[in-house]
Parts: sequence; C-alpha cells; structure tokens
Amino acid sequence: MPEVHVFMAEGKTDEQKRHMMAGITQALVTALDCAAGSVTVQIIEAGLRDKMKGGRTFEERRASPSPRG
Amino acid sequence: MPEVHVFMAEGKTDEQKRHMMAGITQALVTALDCAAGSVTVQIIEAGLRDKMKGGRTFEERRASPSPRG
Amino acid sequence: MPEVHVFMAEGKTDEQKRHMMAGITQALVTALDCAAGSVTVQIIEAGLRDKMKGGRTFEERRASPSPRG
Amino acid sequence: MPEVHVFMAEGKTDEQKRHMMAGITQALVTALDCAAGSVTVQIIEAGLRDKMKGGRTFEERRASPSPRG
Amino acid sequence: MPEVHVFMAEGKTDEQKRHMMAGITQALVTALDCAAGSVTVQIIEAGLRDKMKGGRTFEERRASPSPRG
Amino acid sequence: MPEVHVFMAEGKTDEQKRHMMAGITQALVTALDCAAGSVTVQIIEAGLRDKMKGGRTFEERRASPSPRG
Repeated sequence: MPEVHVFMAEGKTDEQKRHMMAGITQALVTALDCAAGSVTVQIIEAGLRDKMKGGRTFEERRASPSPRG
Repeated sequence: MPEVHVFMAEGKTDEQKRHMMAGITQALVTALDCAAGSVTVQIIEAGLRDKMKGGRTFEERRASPSPRG
Repeated sequence: MPEVHVFMAEGKTDEQKRHMMAGITQALVTALDCAAGSVTVQIIEAGLRDKMKGGRTFEERRASPSPRG
Repeated sequence: MPEVHVFMAEGKTDEQKRHMMAGITQALVTALDCAAGSVTVQIIEAGLRDKMKGGRTFEERRASPSPRG
Repeated sequence: MPEVHVFMAEGKTDEQKRHMMAGITQALVTALDCAAGSVTVQIIEAGLRDKMKGGRTFEERRASPSPRG
Repeated sequence: MPEVHVFMAEGKTDEQKRHMMAGITQALVTALDCAAGSVTVQIIEAGLRDKMKGGRTFEERRASPSPRG
C-alpha cells in the first residue's frame, strides 16, 4: 500500500534508478513486513533548471560546485 | 480549492487522460458540493523505467506481466 | 496502479470524503479501463492555518469570504 | 530542510522559473529564519493536456480563455 | 538532494517508521553514491478514513480484509 | 494556477507559517506575473519522528544537533 515518491534532478542512469527503487522496495518490505507487490515507487525527475537548492539551480550548482554541498 | 494529483506510468492516450480528469472534477463537485472552477487536476507521468511496483519496473512488467497484478 | 492525492483544507465530513474517493476511483476505472483494486486515493488534509489561497489563509477566508472565490 | 514543490503548467521561461524559485527560497529564509542552503525547490511541470482546471484542460483554456479565470 | 515522500495509512509504530526511513536513506546512498546528509525522507500519513484502495477505505479494509490484498 | 506544497517538520509558529505562505504567494505573483488569487499554498507538516535527514529523525537531530546541518 505505501506509495513512495522520489524527487530528484536528472542525471542518474536507468541502472542507478532501478537499483534505487529496488532498494527502497526492499526497505519497506523489511521494515513494515508488507508484501513487495503492495509497494509502488515513482521517480519525479526535474530538469537542471527546474530544481534549486541554496538559491542556485542545479545547472548552476553542477557548473560551479560550492563546498556548501 | 482541492488540488488533485494523479501519479501514473506513461502510456495512456490524451483522450483517456482528459476523460479521467473530467471524471475526477465531477466527482469532487458532486461529493464536496464545490464549484468546478475551484478544482485543479494535474497528471504526473513517469517513464516506464521511472516507476516500479512489486520490485519490477513498469518496463519489466509490460514486457512480462505476472498474475500478481 | 495510479495513485491519486487530494490536497484540501479540513472541514469536510467523513461521508463526503468517502464519497469523493469512491467517485475518483470510479472515474479512473471508467477512463483508464483499469481494475478498481489498482487504484489508491489518499487525502492530504491541511489545518485552516496551513493553507492559503490568494494571499489569505483558509481561516481568514472562512471568517470573511470575498467574491474572489 | 523544507522542500517546496511547485506544480504548474508548462509555458514559463527558464528565467521566470529561476526568478520564482529564488523568490520562494528568500521567502523561506526570511519567514523561518533558516539557512538558504537548507531550502530545496522543485518544479513539477505538466504538459497543457495533462492539467485541468474547472473541467477544461490548459490546452483548451489557452485556446479559449473564459472570464472564470 | 533527493527528497523521498512515503504516503501510507496510519498504524505503524515509530520504530517501524524509523527503520523504514533509515533503510530508504541507505538505499539511496548505495544506489546513487550520494552523501547520507543529502537525503531527506518524510512520511505523509493518512487516517484510515482518508485513504482508499480498490473502492474501500482503509478503515473498511481492516475491518473486513478481502483476498484482493 | 500554480499549487505550492511545502514539506516541513513541525515546530514553526502559525505566524511564521502565515508569513512564509504570503511570501511564497508574492514570489509567484512577481516572477510569473499571475494573479494572487490563482496561487494556492499548502503546508504538509510532519511530526518529528516522521521526518529524517542524513539518517537521523528530526527528533534525534533536535536532541543532538550535529555540524552536518
């Protein structure tokens, strides 16, 4: 029954995303003792100009990383 | 005032999506006795590799459906 | 498979909410030709001080409705 | 720490979106007295056929605006 | 940077929820090779009358489970 | 038309939250040149045990802040 949404900037590979979703599914099965079939995971990906952290878009952050992380 | 978000995998036609959003709008108008003009519906669609159920991506599920649904 | 989230201010009765969720479920079944069992609906309700439209909280809006709707 | 999601129809320029996200970040820093670095903003944009208000898709609304807003 | 939201019905213990969020965090660190400090997880919990699956509220489902799962 | 959702841990005052939502509304009006009446903001607040960053719940983080922010 739980639905999991992951909000992230684009740039990860399909394999990383598949691995991540499988790991999340397993985390829910283990912690909640529920069936894997009841767990849904959806990635909501944003273009680098559609996401901002610390006042800078991810396009700006990737062009010029700061130590602020 | 209510905002409705529908999270789904890609693959439905524009006509199905329009029909679905109109039906949702009507359901809110009827149940909540609110004006249609106050109801917003947005679809958040995921590529088949960006959504997983039961530990399998929707790409995998469509390639090889299982009886688990 | 579709997950539907309804964001709304508190104040509706349980019966209105049940009626609304059943209507949404039916709208998806009809428009998408999917099984009812695959449709999940969750209400995310906000207190009247945790939601704002047009620059006024819903507490303010209910105390003094304006024609702006 | 707060995560802000903006759900909107497509059609705004990158510059408008960057300006908007920077303004939201500043609003949180001012109101909550938190560090800008802790504020994340993500835009979740819908195609004009994937969003509806008042029973009409945004494609229909832009083709034929009504006074209902 | 990724923000994870888990939508679920109430009824799990604090310990189960903490365990689940820690597992999700670890899944992202492993799959995306990102710092744990950049991962945020939030649970959005619904009362049993505010969530529905297959046309029945979770209150109804817990009172009378069906084999549909 | 834009809907803004703010996901945050509990602990802010009503006045801070009202101030924040008003600032967000103004940021959208300025950046997108839209009417204030079309902007909706909703806060989705989590209890301190229902939100985690960096592998620690907000309850743990407030009890023992670390320099990791």
